[in-house]
Amino acid sequence: MSVLVRFGVSLEGRLLDKFDRLIRKRGYATRSEALRDLIRQELVKKEWEEDQEVAGTITFIYDHHRRGLSSRLTDLQHDHQEIIISTQHIHLDHHNCLEIVAVQGRASGVQKLANALRSVKGVRHGALSMTSTGKSIE
Amino acid sequence: MSVLVRFGVSLEGRLLDKFDRLIRKRGYATRSEALRDLIRQELVKKEWEEDQEVAGTITFIYDHHRRGLSSRLTDLQHDHQEIIISTQHIHLDHHNCLEIVAVQGRASGVQKLANALRSVKGVRHGALSMTSTGKSIE
Amino acid sequence: MSVLVRFGVSLEGRLLDKFDRLIRKRGYATRSEALRDLIRQELVKKEWEEDQEVAGTITFIYDHHRRGLSSRLTDLQHDHQEIIISTQHIHLDHHNCLEIVAVQGRASGVQKLANALRSVKGVRHGALSMTSTGKSIE
Amino acid sequence: MSVLVRFGVSLEGRLLDKFDRLIRKRGYATRSEALRDLIRQELVKKEWEEDQEVAGTITFIYDHHRRGLSSRLTDLQHDHQEIIISTQHIHLDHHNCLEIVAVQGRASGVQKLANALRSVKGVRHGALSMTSTGKSIE
Repeated sequence: MSVLVRFGVSLEGRLLDKFDRLIRKRGYATRSEALRDLIRQELVKKEWEEDQEVAGTITFIYDHHRRGLSSRLTDLQHDHQEIIISTQHIHLDHHNCLEIVAVQGRASGVQKLANALRSVKGVRHGALSMTSTGKSIE
Repeated sequence: MSVLVRFGVSLEGRLLDKFDRLIRKRGYATRSEALRDLIRQELVKKEWEEDQEVAGTITFIYDHHRRGLSSRLTDLQHDHQEIIISTQHIHLDHHNCLEIVAVQGRASGVQKLANALRSVKGVRHGALSMTSTGKSIE
Repeated sequence: MSVLVRFGVSLEGRLLDKFDRLIRKRGYATRSEALRDLIRQELVKKEWEEDQEVAGTITFIYDHHRRGLSSRLTDLQHDHQEIIISTQHIHLDHHNCLEIVAVQGRASGVQKLANALRSVKGVRHGALSMTSTGKSIE
Repeated sequence: MSVLVRFGVSLEGRLLDKFDRLIRKRGYATRSEALRDLIRQELVKKEWEEDQEVAGTITFIYDHHRRGLSSRLTDLQHDHQEIIISTQHIHLDHHNCLEIVAVQGRASGVQKLANALRSVKGVRHGALSMTSTGKSIE
């Protein structure tokens, strides 16, 4: 973590009131923290747009009773092991599995893997969560 | 516009450097302006989530050669005239029309109208742009 | 418009029931129309991701009392007239103007103009609505 | 899994060509599978909009060197244990941790927890991935 720098910001009083109400509701202790988070959100969006090194999670659900499906999903993950950190598997109910793959790599590679997992027959839904390796938002 | 209030913000030096590069690239003159915009973005999101009075545009494209389509779209707009401010019509090419409906009203009503226009047979694509009446972000 | 092609789709019965309920609620007359729209949505997303020729609207609000602001916004639009089709201006209230710029051009150029308009001092909120020129989704 | 139902869909030939190219690129074996996925995407969006029972993942990154942070995050998770299924912790580098919380519950509760985790001082970025319990998209 780097040294804290202090600077002044000018804002319309009414707008500041609204912001204060919003951040209190969201549980922030100070304006600086809330603004820091807004800034980081923008920087993370930029990382993904510029195809930089990112981190994220690919979440998908499928029916594990479907013959051969688990092994196809495992094979596909092994083919991309250079960007997969680990996988968490959750039994949602008798049929549905939730699998969460933590990934780190170039944004385009992560998106490609998410598309590939999503399009496997029997995968019911897939979602990609975009976050950062943390380095560029320290 | 209300009176400007000045307050101090503390941020990690490295994070501030990255933010400064980002806002320079986007053409902002000062940090205050860039932060003001991030704050307003959040407030506008909140307006829509909380089903407040909002403004926006519904944009859709369709083939005007399709018999009866224009009049169906006009009828539908008249049925919702209480939230429609005005409509702009653009001839994209020989077939395709771009129609832009400026709307103001409750978020849920605007979304319902957008869905209705989008689902008319012959409408090729519809998009809803969410902005504010301006009052809550002054 | 091109010739209609008919093909068969297999879907789980329960899933189809849910889909039928959803599209009835949204006002679609047939499954074909609803599926056509889902397909077009995906194609339009792809156009934007692949930086193709697109159409869209840039919507922003600002306070027209702010000295020099209107002319800066007009200047900026003139500098990008090759992608701007037309502009619609709406007086939301005594202070707030809603301006809607219809655009057509490369996705990256449209996004750059949206960022530029949004970052002008005094512009309170800006939103970009992504649609298509219609050609690629006929 | 329920019984497969077969039905016919009519689509413009040119549009179908484009769709076929898109789904081949994404790795789908048949049109039915690709359409099934588009339908499920819409149904999952609806689940979240209507505040139904959903599943998802909350992903966030933080610096574990920050004193007291890990225990605050753990406490917060315990306070919401009724919607948390499990948590996966990944060491991205010397400083940055990636924590992935698998959740199941009402959409509004999940979103509230995501906001709470995101706003803890020291959490650098948080993202919410929205998927389904699988039941409503079988």
